[in-house]
Amino acid sequence: MKVAILGATGQNGTSIVNGLLASTKTRFDIAALVRPSSLKKPNVIELQSKGINIVSFNLDDPEDHLAAQLKGIDVLIVCCLIDEAILVNAAKKAGVKRYVPCFYATVMPRGIQTLRDTKETTLDHIQRLHLDYTVIDVGLWYQISLPRLPSGRIDRNLFLYNSAIGGSGDIPCARTDSRDVGRYVARIITDPRTLNQKLFAYTDLRTQHELYDTRTADEIDDGIARTKDDPYKMMDYYQFTYQKSYDIMGENTPDYARYLGYQISKDLYPDMEGISFEDFFEETLEHGLKPMHEEFADMLRGSSSFVFQGEAITK
Amino acid sequence: MKVAILGATGQNGTSIVNGLLASTKTRFDIAALVRPSSLKKPNVIELQSKGINIVSFNLDDPEDHLAAQLKGIDVLIVCCLIDEAILVNAAKKAGVKRYVPCFYATVMPRGIQTLRDTKETTLDHIQRLHLDYTVIDVGLWYQISLPRLPSGRIDRNLFLYNSAIGGSGDIPCARTDSRDVGRYVARIITDPRTLNQKLFAYTDLRTQHELYDTRTADEIDDGIARTKDDPYKMMDYYQFTYQKSYDIMGENTPDYARYLGYQISKDLYPDMEGISFEDFFEETLEHGLKPMHEEFADMLRGSSSFVFQGEAITK
Repeated sequence: MKVAILGATGQNGTSIVNGLLASTKTRFDIAALVRPSSLKKPNVIELQSKGINIVSFNLDDPEDHLAAQLKGIDVLIVCCLIDEAILVNAAKKAGVKRYVPCFYATVMPRGIQTLRDTKETTLDHIQRLHLDYTVIDVGLWYQISLPRLPSGRIDRNLFLYNSAIGGSGDIPCARTDSRDVGRYVARIITDPRTLNQKLFAYTDLRTQHELYDTRTADEIDDGIARTKDDPYKMMDYYQFTYQKSYDIMGENTPDYARYLGYQISKDLYPDMEGISFEDFFEETLEHGLKPMHEEFADMLRGSSSFVFQGEAITK
Repeated sequence: MKVAILGATGQNGTSIVNGLLASTKTRFDIAALVRPSSLKKPNVIELQSKGINIVSFNLDDPEDHLAAQLKGIDVLIVCCLIDEAILVNAAKKAGVKRYVPCFYATVMPRGIQTLRDTKETTLDHIQRLHLDYTVIDVGLWYQISLPRLPSGRIDRNLFLYNSAIGGSGDIPCARTDSRDVGRYVARIITDPRTLNQKLFAYTDLRTQHELYDTRTADEIDDGIARTKDDPYKMMDYYQFTYQKSYDIMGENTPDYARYLGYQISKDLYPDMEGISFEDFFEETLEHGLKPMHEEFADMLRGSSSFVFQGEAITK
C-alpha cells in the first residue's frame, strides 16, 4: 500500500511513520512530502535512513503539478496544520483512494473552537468533492497530560505540562500515548470499515480529579472571551476551548463520539492494546519524558496554560 | 409515545400526522404546536377532529415558558422552516428524548446551498447541547417530480411541475411520495437504531433521462451565481442548488448518503414498501394530483423552475 505523509517529521508524523514501519499486517511503501527548503534538515535525512522516500513537494505549485506528484498514492495522510483545500483538490484529481485530513485531536462539536471548525471545513470540502476519507481523532496525548509533581520526580524533560484542569475535574477524558497514534493509523487506513467514517482511537479514559489546580467553568468562559480575537493568545484560546469541551462538556469521550457518529477503535480492534497511562507514567518517572518535536513545542510556547521546563512555573 | 409537532398543517406535517395515526405498531399521543393566531384556522380545527391535541405555542415566549410546555414530550418534530435555536434550547431544558429538526430534503454536503447549511447549523447547535436527535431526509417528493405531458393528460391539479432537469438527466435521484413521509417517520422515531443518526428514507431511485428539457451544468452554475444574493430569487436559487446537487453531482442517492454517514431506510425496514412512482403516476393520470398545501405552494410560486397550473407554461 502506497502512503504519502505531509508533516512526517512532526509529533504525529513521526508516530505515524514508526507505526507504519512497525506494521506486520501490511507492508507500506511510504513517501514523505517535504517542502523544498526542508530537504536537507537532519530529521528529513533521518527519515530517509529509515527507508522513507523523500519527495520534494511545494504547496505553492499548481494543482495539476501536485496531482501528478500524488498519482498512484493509495492513502494521503496530512498531519500538519495547513490550508488543505489545494491538497484535497489535487488528491481528488490524482485518484487518491483515501484522504486522512489533519484532525488527531479531542472529540468536539462544531462552533466551540475555530481550530476545530477549520478542520470540519476541510471535511466539508472533501465531501463536496466526493473524495474518500477517514477522520481520526485520538483524544489528548499522555505527553501533554501530566501535572508537575511537588517532589520534582518527573521534571526531567517535562518541558510541557498541564497547569490547570477545568471545572470539577471529574469529567472523563480520553487519552492516548502519542507513540501509539501511528499504530492506530496503520490499522485504520487498511480497514475497509473505516472508509468515509470518523474514528475515535484512544487508549485511556479517566477523569482529572486527582490532578492539582482546577479552573472553574466561568474562568474558562472568561478565558475564551479574553483570548478569542487576539492572535497573540491563540494557544491560550485553543487550550481554553479544548478545556471547555473536554473538562466541562465531557465531549472527549467514547459516548459523545458515538453520539456524533464516530466509530470507536476499541470496538473495531479489541485485540489492540495501547500503551497504558500507568506504563507511560512509570516510564516517565524512571527515564523522564522524551522531548517533544521542536515545531510543536515552539507552537505551544507562550501559552499560559502549558508551562515549559525552565520557564516560570506560575503564570 | 408522546409526540409534539411544529408545522402539523403543512405538506410534511399532514403526512406525519397521518403516518403516526395510521401506525399499528405504536400508539402515539400527538400534540400540534400551533401559533396563537392560527388556532381558529380550518386546517387546525380539522386536526382537532382527528384527535390531535392543539397546543397554543408562541415561539416569541421566553425559553423557560416553552420548556414548561414541552415537559413530558418524548419526541419533538419540527417540519416548518424557522430559526430552531430557541426550540432546541427549550427541548433540552424540558428533557425531550428525541428532537427531529426540519430536514426532509435531498442528501447534500455542506457549502452547496444556504438553506441546507442553515439546517446543518441547527444540527451543530443540537450537538453542542448534547440533545438526542434524528435527522430525516426523504429525497425529492414525487409530487414535485412530474413534467407536463404534451397530451395534457396530467394537467388536472398539476399546479406544480418541474420544467427543467439538470445536466444529462442520467444521474440517479431518490424520490418518495409525500404521503409516505409520515409512515417513514412513524417507524424511525420509535427505533433505537436511529437515535443520533441521519436517516435517508426514500422509495424510488431513478434517473430523469426520460423527462423533457435539460439544463446544462454551466446553466445551473450561472443560475446559482445570478440568484444567490437576490432575496426575490430565493426559490430559484434553492432549485438551482438542489439541481446542482442531485442532477449534476448525484448526491441524492443512497451511495452518497452512506458516504456522508447516513443510515438507509431500506436497510432498516426491508419489509416496508413505499408507494411506487408507477402507482403514483397511474393515480395522477386517473384522478389528477392532490392539491398541495397552500403555504408550500405560496412559497414556490414565483420560481421560474417550477410552473403552476393556470400560469404561463414557458418561463
